Amino acid sequence: MYPHSAGDTVSRRASVQPRTLAVLALTMIAMPAVVLAHSPSKPIPKVIMPTDHDVQSVSPALEYYTASKLIGEVWKRPGLSPRDRSVVTVAALISRNQTVEMPYHFRLALDNGVKPSELSEIIFHLAFYCGWPNAMAAVMIAKDVFAERGIRVEQLPAISPSLLPLEPMAEEKRAARVAQDVGPVSPGLVEYTGALLFHDLWLRPDLAPRDRSLVTVSALIAAGQSAQITFHLNKAMDNGLTKAQISEALTHLAFYVGWPNAMSAVPVVKNVFDSRADQADYK
Amino acid sequence: MYPHSAGDTVSRRASVQPRTLAVLALTMIAMPAVVLAHSPSKPIPKVIMPTDHDVQSVSPALEYYTASKLIGEVWKRPGLSPRDRSVVTVAALISRNQTVEMPYHFRLALDNGVKPSELSEIIFHLAFYCGWPNAMAAVMIAKDVFAERGIRVEQLPAISPSLLPLEPMAEEKRAARVAQDVGPVSPGLVEYTGALLFHDLWLRPDLAPRDRSLVTVSALIAAGQSAQITFHLNKAMDNGLTKAQISEALTHLAFYVGWPNAMSAVPVVKNVFDSRADQADYK
Amino acid sequence: MYPHSAGDTVSRRASVQPRTLAVLALTMIAMPAVVLAHSPSKPIPKVIMPTDHDVQSVSPALEYYTASKLIGEVWKRPGLSPRDRSVVTVAALISRNQTVEMPYHFRLALDNGVKPSELSEIIFHLAFYCGWPNAMAAVMIAKDVFAERGIRVEQLPAISPSLLPLEPMAEEKRAARVAQDVGPVSPGLVEYTGALLFHDLWLRPDLAPRDRSLVTVSALIAAGQSAQITFHLNKAMDNGLTKAQISEALTHLAFYVGWPNAMSAVPVVKNVFDSRADQADYK
Repeated sequence: MYPHSAGDTVSRRASVQPRTLAVLALTMIAMPAVVLAHSPSKPIPKVIMPTDHDVQSVSPALEYYTASKLIGEVWKRPGLSPRDRSVVTVAALISRNQTVEMPYHFRLALDNGVKPSELSEIIFHLAFYCGWPNAMAAVMIAKDVFAERGIRVEQLPAISPSLLPLEPMAEEKRAARVAQDVGPVSPGLVEYTGALLFHDLWLRPDLAPRDRSLVTVSALIAAGQSAQITFHLNKAMDNGLTKAQISEALTHLAFYVGWPNAMSAVPVVKNVFDSRADQADYK
Repeated sequence: MYPHSAGDTVSRRASVQPRTLAVLALTMIAMPAVVLAHSPSKPIPKVIMPTDHDVQSVSPALEYYTASKLIGEVWKRPGLSPRDRSVVTVAALISRNQTVEMPYHFRLALDNGVKPSELSEIIFHLAFYCGWPNAMAAVMIAKDVFAERGIRVEQLPAISPSLLPLEPMAEEKRAARVAQDVGPVSPGLVEYTGALLFHDLWLRPDLAPRDRSLVTVSALIAAGQSAQITFHLNKAMDNGLTKAQISEALTHLAFYVGWPNAMSAVPVVKNVFDSRADQADYK
Repeated sequence: MYPHSAGDTVSRRASVQPRTLAVLALTMIAMPAVVLAHSPSKPIPKVIMPTDHDVQSVSPALEYYTASKLIGEVWKRPGLSPRDRSVVTVAALISRNQTVEMPYHFRLALDNGVKPSELSEIIFHLAFYCGWPNAMAAVMIAKDVFAERGIRVEQLPAISPSLLPLEPMAEEKRAARVAQDVGPVSPGLVEYTGALLFHDLWLRPDLAPRDRSLVTVSALIAAGQSAQITFHLNKAMDNGLTKAQISEALTHLAFYVGWPNAMSAVPVVKNVFDSRADQADYK
């Protein structure tokens, strides 16, 4: 069981009020100063959020299930902490480039205990795993959330921090496999995979390897990229992610990326679980 | 042959005029009242639409093929009614989170005979099949379309309506399969698949099972999720969708989700058709 | 080695300054004239761009790697010209419907030597390969870029130009294969694939077949549509795309569409390379 105190921020009221529209946040920024600066001392409300009433006006059932099932039940299930659910959700939104819900979920992640330095690293990590444009779209939302919370650049991970130690055997195996599989097709891809991804990126200390794995696996499931799950799920379990946490992440993701993506991941996850059957099961 | 009278709304003029930019709709809402409220008695124009001229100024060929082929020919083909083509198109847009064309196609769907209660249910249905953020993005567009048409919450499906009867044998088979395949990986996913998806959702009466199937299959093809098509296409045909309708939906979807997604669905659809060869063919 | 002079526009400064937010571009257009028209003689600044500072305020590492690795190194690698890298990038953005970076990359493409008529054709081509809504979203960005550069409709490809000659043997083979594979499932799809795609579209002269292939393959990799890569990569190599160029396009795409999509394409590309092993290798 996980402590759920942090999860209290996912309250009934919060569920709808801060659901925010990134577009609108940006809109307000873009406006000429004269329009917005009526009250320079008060923070400018940067987003307009759909209210209970907005959702009800299209689908009363959707409003009810959001409040009673998704927020009221799924987010409070044992097996995965609210903090980890936020990590999973943020990764899914960036993977699918869904800026509309990012302001709400970036704030919720910080409320649930994801550190600003970790959120920063998640975005940097996903530049590589979802592509630069997805990361840049996330930057446009995160910069406002960071500004409104007074998060300064000194609190963020350094450009070149002291890296975590490389695990030479695992890295040697990975490098050999990539050299063999990818080398005949794209030497450039082999080069950057080694030098950037598995060195510069994965060894950065400001996001735990276990969290990088949770982010990566969530992004892969969110994008329906089953072919890449096996390697990263094994790495995730090597990094300490448990079967119970993966099980709950899948349940959680079904709501955020749709049932088909969750279901398509199931046989791949099952194969990985079976291949590691000697390991402690559901704990 | 299908009656095409409703399809007349897909006219040459309509093809470009109401093509709308959701972002702009939202923009206008976000603006301070003082900027917009010059004429409080007139409805605020919420969207700016690309005109013929906009499309021509980038690609005269695109404007021509939109008018002459897509609107002027594909939408009028026999085999699938304009109403069903709207259902397919709306599902594709929500599946791919393409808000830009939603205002136009939500309005066209209502013009083509999709009831407000059905459009509401399509969005709720796709919360589960495409993920909550896609449904919420659709809500932000649909709420304005519903408001401009005077559609009130009383016309929308209830939160807990009297459900359609469960087909015990099909459900037992489905539940057993999911318990076996998914149970070892994610008990939570098994639980919600049974209690929410195949009970609370699929048995709601305000969207016919045949239409839920058309929505689901369209969303799967739109997302390139071939692995999930087999189950849902069989269910679709059990629910009354014909081979001729599926054939035309594929043709239609090629234009809205791109040829590769349509082509990737073809072998899966072919396998399902072949496995049901005893059934009445193209009708 | 390729001449890199055109690539100089991808400078350190340019890397961040013109990275633009389409939403904001549209926002400004939507505003009442009274707000924007303070200086009608000067062009209205249509986009607000994240600055160095914006990216740094979320992830100093992301800003550094954008400037030093992606812009400062990847774009300057030999094997693929800056012009071709722009073609690949634009195709990836349209394929993934990522409007945020389109204004920057549409401008950069023109700076790198992609002709306006070619950019126009890329958008038209991708209407078929990514779906109409993706093309329409691109139109909304391109129309402003074309307007700001004074590109007139007379410079754009005609609706019905004189077509390139059909290669009867290749077309006969393709048509037979599609008729056999797709015919039993969707006669309409067969019809439009022949009449529209491989006749009206691929034979248009304003984008070289080799460039259409580069656009198509890039869009397929960007969308994770491995199943369709084999046919189009063979066509690409028939059209003159070299292994070295494909190798570099994959490296480049890893940054723009994420490592998993690039990695998922690798085994398919490898199979095509192996099946054509008699051809000249890496040149």
